[in-house]
This record gives sequence, C-alpha cells and structure tokens, in this order.
Amino acid sequence: MSDTSWELKGEAKRLAILNAIPEKWRLKSPVPPATELRDVTGDYIQQYLTEREIEITETDAVDIVNETSIGRWSAVEVTEAFCHRAALAHQLVGCLHEVFFEAAIEDAKQQDEYFAKHNTPIGPLHGLPVSLKDQFHVKGVETTMGYVGWINTFQGQPNDPRSGTEESELVRELRNLGAVLYCKTSVPATLMSGETINNIIGYTWNPKNRLLSCGGSSGGEGALMALRGSPAGFGTDIGGSVRIPAGFNFLYGLRPSAGRIPYQGAANSIDGQGSILSVIGPIAPTARSLTLLFKAVLSEKPWLYDPLALELPWRDEVVQETRALIEKARGGASTLAFGIMKYDGVAPVHPPIARGLRIVEKTLRRLGHRVIEWKPPAHAIAVELVGKVFDMDGGADMKYHFSLSGESPAPQVISADNGTEMTASEIATLNVAKRQYQKQYMDYWHSTAEVTGTGRPVDGLFCPLAPHAAVIPSEYNYVGYTGFVNLLDYTSLAVPVTFANKKVDVKSADGSVIDSENIQWDYDADTYDGAPVGVQFVGRRLQEEKMLTLAEYLGEEIALDAKERD
Amino acid sequence: MSDTSWELKGEAKRLAILNAIPEKWRLKSPVPPATELRDVTGDYIQQYLTEREIEITETDAVDIVNETSIGRWSAVEVTEAFCHRAALAHQLVGCLHEVFFEAAIEDAKQQDEYFAKHNTPIGPLHGLPVSLKDQFHVKGVETTMGYVGWINTFQGQPNDPRSGTEESELVRELRNLGAVLYCKTSVPATLMSGETINNIIGYTWNPKNRLLSCGGSSGGEGALMALRGSPAGFGTDIGGSVRIPAGFNFLYGLRPSAGRIPYQGAANSIDGQGSILSVIGPIAPTARSLTLLFKAVLSEKPWLYDPLALELPWRDEVVQETRALIEKARGGASTLAFGIMKYDGVAPVHPPIARGLRIVEKTLRRLGHRVIEWKPPAHAIAVELVGKVFDMDGGADMKYHFSLSGESPAPQVISADNGTEMTASEIATLNVAKRQYQKQYMDYWHSTAEVTGTGRPVDGLFCPLAPHAAVIPSEYNYVGYTGFVNLLDYTSLAVPVTFANKKVDVKSADGSVIDSENIQWDYDADTYDGAPVGVQFVGRRLQEEKMLTLAEYLGEEIALDAKERD
Repeated sequence: MSDTSWELKGEAKRLAILNAIPEKWRLKSPVPPATELRDVTGDYIQQYLTEREIEITETDAVDIVNETSIGRWSAVEVTEAFCHRAALAHQLVGCLHEVFFEAAIEDAKQQDEYFAKHNTPIGPLHGLPVSLKDQFHVKGVETTMGYVGWINTFQGQPNDPRSGTEESELVRELRNLGAVLYCKTSVPATLMSGETINNIIGYTWNPKNRLLSCGGSSGGEGALMALRGSPAGFGTDIGGSVRIPAGFNFLYGLRPSAGRIPYQGAANSIDGQGSILSVIGPIAPTARSLTLLFKAVLSEKPWLYDPLALELPWRDEVVQETRALIEKARGGASTLAFGIMKYDGVAPVHPPIARGLRIVEKTLRRLGHRVIEWKPPAHAIAVELVGKVFDMDGGADMKYHFSLSGESPAPQVISADNGTEMTASEIATLNVAKRQYQKQYMDYWHSTAEVTGTGRPVDGLFCPLAPHAAVIPSEYNYVGYTGFVNLLDYTSLAVPVTFANKKVDVKSADGSVIDSENIQWDYDADTYDGAPVGVQFVGRRLQEEKMLTLAEYLGEEIALDAKERD
Repeated sequence: MSDTSWELKGEAKRLAILNAIPEKWRLKSPVPPATELRDVTGDYIQQYLTEREIEITETDAVDIVNETSIGRWSAVEVTEAFCHRAALAHQLVGCLHEVFFEAAIEDAKQQDEYFAKHNTPIGPLHGLPVSLKDQFHVKGVETTMGYVGWINTFQGQPNDPRSGTEESELVRELRNLGAVLYCKTSVPATLMSGETINNIIGYTWNPKNRLLSCGGSSGGEGALMALRGSPAGFGTDIGGSVRIPAGFNFLYGLRPSAGRIPYQGAANSIDGQGSILSVIGPIAPTARSLTLLFKAVLSEKPWLYDPLALELPWRDEVVQETRALIEKARGGASTLAFGIMKYDGVAPVHPPIARGLRIVEKTLRRLGHRVIEWKPPAHAIAVELVGKVFDMDGGADMKYHFSLSGESPAPQVISADNGTEMTASEIATLNVAKRQYQKQYMDYWHSTAEVTGTGRPVDGLFCPLAPHAAVIPSEYNYVGYTGFVNLLDYTSLAVPVTFANKKVDVKSADGSVIDSENIQWDYDADTYDGAPVGVQFVGRRLQEEKMLTLAEYLGEEIALDAKERD
C-alpha cells in the first residue's frame, strides 16, 4: 500500500468524523491560532452555547443524575447539550474519533419515555452522557484506536461479522445503568504514549493551552472533558493513560487495581500481555463523579461477565470507616497520615509540579494530618521493569497494526520497536522481579505504621503524575511517576491542583534539583504558562472505596489552598 | 558431576530423612511386600500405636482444635502422637522429605506454656500439627522439592543466606495461628506429575493399595494423611496437584482460586509463569478441616503480606446464605441444583469413577436437588491450552534444576522438555485464547440459570478428578479433568466417595465408552481393587466459602449412599 493510500484513508476518516457533526453545530469562522489564543475553555467555548446548554454542561455527573432521576431534566435535553458541546470541543482541539449523536438522542428519547411511563430512572446513570475512549466497541460505530489500518475493519480484521455489531462488556453495563453513549474519544495509535497523535485526527491539543498536549493515551477524554463536552467518561491505563490526561486537563481520574472494571470485549494493544494489565478507569471533573461511575459499574456485577473481573462489590463499609476518620480529623484528632514523594530519584520535576505538591502538603498540614517523607524501594527499579514489560514483544503488535495500512508511527510512541521478543523464561524472570519489587514496596508501605501515629500505615501517598504539567509536544518521555503504580497494581487517582504560572513557577525556584539522568530539564515557563497541574494520590491495591472517599475530601480542601495562592 | 555422584547424594539425603526419625519410632521388622499386603492403613499402622495415639491421630482437625483450645489435650501430646504416626507412615510408603519433630515438640511446649499462663489458645489452630508439601520454607529445615541439586542449597543456590533461615509467608501465618509444623512431604521433582517420584526418596506409594500411586504432586501430603500421620496440610495445585492426591487417598482437598492463600516465599517450578498460577490449598480427611484451615489463614490478612493475594476476607454471609439454602432443601424445597459431567469428551473414565459419579448423582436426587447434564464448551480446547501453558518454557526450568546435580528425570513428568520457548507474542495469543475460553465457560455456567429452576445457575459441578482411581505407576497421563479448572481459575474440591471394587467395577460395565483418543483404557480391575475413588466438585471463581459449605453438607450425604452400596 502506498503512502498516499494511508494518508488518503486517514484524511477521509478525519473528514467523516467532522461530517458526522450536524451542520448547525459546525463552526462558521476559523478559530484563532494557539499562538494568539491558548485557552479555548470557559468564555471561549461558551460563546457558541445557550445559557441553558452552559448550565447543563457545567453541571457535574452527580448533579446531572440528580436532575434526570427525578425527571426535572430530560435525558434528551442533557444529551443534546453535551452533543453540541462535544461537537465544538472536537472542532477546537480534535478530540473525537467517533460521533454518534443521532443514536444517542434516540436512546435518550427512549429513556425519557421509560421515565414518563414508570416514573423511575432506568438506573443510577439515567440520562447521563458518558464518553468513551476509542477502545470500546459500540454497536453501529467503528473502533480505529487511531490506526488507519483499522478503518472499515474489526480491530484490523476486514469483513469480520463483529464489525459494528459488537459491544464491549462495559458498554453493555453502561446501557443497563441508564448512561447515554454519544462519542468516542481520540487516542495515540498503539496507546503507548503520553500524548495523543495519530494519522486520522492528527494531534489532540490541550484546551487550556493549545500549545501543549492533552496527554495520553486517554487524551481525547481529557481534552473533551476540559471543554465540558462530557461530564464523565472511561479511559484505560497501563502506564498512566487515565491519570496523565486527567492531570493535564485539571480533572480527576481513577486508575483502579486490575479486576474491578470489566475490560472484556474492549480493543487493546498487545492483548494478552499478562505482566502489567491495562485497566479501565473513570475520568471526570469532580471526584464524586468518579465514585458515581465506579460504584454504578460494580452494581452490574462485572465478575459474572468478565473472567478477569473480581467478585468485589462496592464496599460501603470502607466508605463509612473512611468518613468516620475524616470526621474525627475535622474534630481535631490526628487520624489520618499521608506520604509525600516530591522526587522519585530518577526524574526531577518542573517548578509547577513542585509547587502543586507544596500546596498539597500545606493542605494536609492545615488539616492536621501527619505528613511522612516517602522513602520507598528505589523507583529506578520500577521504571526499568515497566520498560521491559512494555517492550516485551519487541514491537511486534504495533508493527503489525501499522503494517495493515503502511502508515508511519508517530515518534511519541514510548515502547520499543526493536524486533526482539522476550522468551517465556525471560518473562517468568521479569514477573518474579516484579513480584519481589511489589513485596518490597508493600513491606515499606506497611512499615510506615511505625511513624504515622495513627496505628496504621499511611492512608495514601501524594506524588507527581509526571515531571511536568500538560506537556510540550514531543517532550513527554518519562512514564515513571505513573508507571510504578501499574507495576504495583495499586489504586491511584489524578487530583487537580493548580495551573502553571510563569510569574511564580520560575526555573531558579527548583534549580537545586540536578537532572542526573538528563531525562529532562526542559522547563519553559512561558510555554507552560496556564498548563493544568495535577498530582497523584496513590493507595494500596484494591483500595478504590477508600481512595475515592479521601479524594473527594482532600480534593476540595486542596482547591481551597490552591485558590488562596492565586 | 557423574551419575554416581547424584545417586549418592540422593541416597545420603534419603538416609538422613530416615535417621531424623527417633530410634524408638523406627520399624524393627520388615513390612510385607505390596503384593502380599496392599493396605497399610487402619489396623496395620495401628499395631505400632497406643490407644491414646490412635484416638488423637484419628480425630479430625476441628475436634483436635476443640480439645487443645480448652486445654483438655496438650499441644505436646497431640504433636508427639502425629510425629510418631508420621514416622511410621514414612517408613511404610515413603512420604516425607523433611522431619523436624524435635523443633515441633519444642514449639508445642511453648504453646502449652502459653496456654497455662493465659488460659487461652494462641490462635484458631492452637496445637494443631500441620504438614506441608516440600515447597514451603521452614526455619532450620531444607527444601529440596525433590531435586537432588537442591540439597544443601536454597532453591538450587549454594551458600545462599536464606538457607535454613527463610520462612514462607504461609508458614509465618500458620505459626501465628498456633499450628505446629513438624514435617514436609514428598513431591515429584518438577511438580509436574500426577505421581510422586524423585531421586531422593524414590516413589511414594498409596497406603490403601501399595501397588498404586499416591498421586501428585502433593503426593506425600495425600499418603501421609491417608495413614493419619497428619490431620491437615497444605499442597499446591497448578493442574490438579492438590485434588489428585486428595482423591487418590480418600481425602478432601481444596484448590481455591488464585489470590486467596499466600504463595509468597514458597519455592515453585517455573516461578513467574503467569498464565496459570499455581495455588496453595488445604488437604484433610474432613471437609470441615479444610474450612478451618482456609478461614484461619484468611484471618491473617495475607493481602497485607503477599502482593498477589486478594483483599477478600472470609465471607461468613456467603456461608449463612448457603446454609439457608441447604436448610430449605432439607425442608423439601428445590433450592439447589448441580451439574454432572461424567465424561469430558476426551478421556473416558474407568468403571470405579463412573460408579463414584453414579453414587453422587443418587445422593443429589435423593436430596431433591436438580441435576443438570453438563454441556460445556469443548474441554478438548482447555486440555490443549493447559498443555501449552505447561510447556511454555520448553522445559528450560526443569532442565536447569536437573542439571544442578546431573540427575535423570523420572518419565512421569508431564510437561515437555523440547527446548522450544514460547515468545512474548505467542504467550499473549495464548492468554487471549485462555480468556476467551474462560468467557465461554462463564457464559455457559451462567446460562444454566434457565434450566435449574432455582433462579440461579447451578450451585456446583460434579465431574471426575481423573479417568481412574489412584493410578497404576506410570499410567497417570491425562490431566484434563483437573487442569480445566486451573485454566478457568475456578474453586474446586476433591470429595472422597468410595473404593474401587473388582467385583462391582468390571470392565464391561462401561464398555460402551469408546476411547477415541486412545488416551487410556488400561483398566485392570484386580490391581485397582481397593483404590480410593474421589470426585471433583467445582464452583465458579472465588467461591470458596460457598463450595466448602456445600462440600461439608454433600460429602456427608454422599458417604451415606456410598456406605449403603458397599
């Protein structure tokens, strides 16, 4: 296949996506270039919307469901508002792979009819538009995952009967729960990148600063949600792909431990690689929206439908215990303790990230919580092991999928394409090394019980999501801050904190940090100005109930301190 | 290293094991050959024991703990009785790899002192002797796992500081729980065999019929327990290694789903192979003893110490729900339903196994339970996938460990030694095929809700453990009946039913079954006469609480029907 061919196919698909947007929602005049107008969120996108549309789309998922569940807002009205805003978002930053607004509005109509007839919602997500990363199969809609060679196929297989008919297990459950599906969001081909770029839609930009990346690989989710074109959605995370775009777009994102949200029937890269499992997690502008989605999915008992899902229903008793600790802390008791790691010993962080962590520390201390300096087993080991897992097949999977069209990969792909496959024995050795590291980390975590003063180990760890805020294109090259969590299979959240500020976040402020590995010290205060700064909040394995509850509490408190600073 | 060298080393170790048995417990006169005396259980072994020793050693774990926990039986007395009987068992069938009676009695003394001082047991296993398969590391004791090359090393590594100092996580927990550790039991080198043979202790025979195998790979556990040299113990199971020896020795054995009992720090074959995880499970003469051990270990929160253990405490509410269903059934309601699979479409079963399943079916029908004919996705697929997983490293791991001494492997090893390692891509493809099969099986299981009449899918599946009862040496060659459970990661128990009877179990009785695969039809009614017949009782993944509760109930009922038949 000639180069022209794949370029034309990609271009045709790009146009098809645009053309799926109703004429009435297309932008009539060109958007100013990023150099003139970085930020297209807020006022800028609002100019195209009615006040009612703004009201709806700037309401969080919890409050949307509160309105739709009592019939005060119709599913159709809510769906149309989000379809409109998503259409605008795509035209501003290129964040959608699939647009199926008509089907969505049809679904919403049926939901409204159901409500009119039964006077009760279909489920806990009644009438809630939910966006999906382009790995989930939805009836009547294509899945390209950013590969030109997947256009008009099922995961690269032409004439596959599953094309357009298959639905991923999560999609089936979301429909049962009353969610409305209306778009699929952009990803980097291969999914192995912290930026979102492919030969179909090109580059997905950061809505807060269009000189920067929206992150990846669930980058379209992040960008769409930063523009409030979606109240909540699902991404996937094998090295940070939920948390990175969440952090880069001032959102919350949850990377649950493997086995909680069903991956069954979703497309993936190197499907079957078993050393670090990609997991599905929700992304949303508020922490409580993550809780809503996560809890709703568990109510569908995914373990009956996905062989890799664990029979671990939502544990409300953990929520209650955690809330009791929070209440005690509010009463002045020292009941909670947190670790803070400002530097992992490998990649020094940029000034905005250092400041973000200082804000978090200030919040924790203001609230009277014990703050523990984190001295874990060397993260360099985790970084090395994660890299080996990502490179396990020597690039065979991505090479195959790129070869389907003959397209050229983007340079941002972070896993190796060296043609060297690991053997069964090498993989077994790697898995043992992984387990040993997990054991060491677990023991370290446990050992903090001696210093917290709460009788328990730390309740969570705050650390960077990446060395930088939403990144300058082509400069995302260190996955260690998020990847260690995937190696450990811990629960982790992205928590939004602040925005890079060129007046405050000056290079010299952290000049003492030496970049010994020369991984990066490319901080450019001016370009990063305005970039969202998120941090990571990590808990032990399978602690989703606790970590979500703490994130709801701490996220609000951190926001107060971040505001004060501004 | 010359052949002589490894033979001498193996022989020296064999003698060292024998010499670790106190002089007073050594057999003074030779045991009649198996051709003259098949069965050395019951009367035969009792001749060497006092009445009090017989009383103690023929009491099950639950009742032992009942006695020790109120101080009526001392830990020392109980420990000494089992040490004595284990010493005899080893001399009769060769079932021990390590003997550390002195340390055990010392531990028991300390427990008695603790009880005398505090008037309360140390834990739920206070004073209970627990035997361990020779994969667990115990302080002051060697682990050879049947490899001559591991003698005087730590898992084959000479001069390793962990030699004699390391304890596996399960061992640490058992000590916390009050268990007394006193011996480690024999395994086939590689662990990949349904018989127990190695170049140290030779062959472990079946105590009920010494012409037959005790099973494997937890064969020493099975043989020791058949002789009541242990009230309860732990084996491991990657393809049937807990269930096979349990079934072959008229015992109960539990293969839990992965992640419940901590494997951390135990020796293993092809450690790090991640496609089918070996799991640890308890073996005992009564089902309630399995429950006691399983529940006790979970009370130690293994998920805080083993990175692969799941935070899934013992779910007493499941036990209560299950008991309520049983009570309703006893009241005449049709509340439970079971599948029965008498033939997996690959390996036809011998007459004793077919009769065992008929007894089970009779019991289920007598109790008023619905019995469903099992029509699952083709088991041949599972058999093929399990074989691929076992052969993944082309024999590299076993070749290495055999090479440490230069010893010759036994022909009974069931995994390939072909030198062909699978690549990362091939393993990923295999893992996808595994997941697809798991999904199909899960969907099939789920679909039985339409025919059970209980509103639920079947509550469990009964099927063979192997095509044969306790097997004729060198004739164990089909792992499919147990292996499909490992592929699915389901909960499964071995349940004892009856004994092969040459008068009843005649070849013609099931002559209609054609052995199309020619896997085996080597039934020899005379040799098999007296061999224990167990069946398998399978539940969905992570259903240990339910399946143990059902096994306690059904096991007793099956025993009534089996007795009636005799």
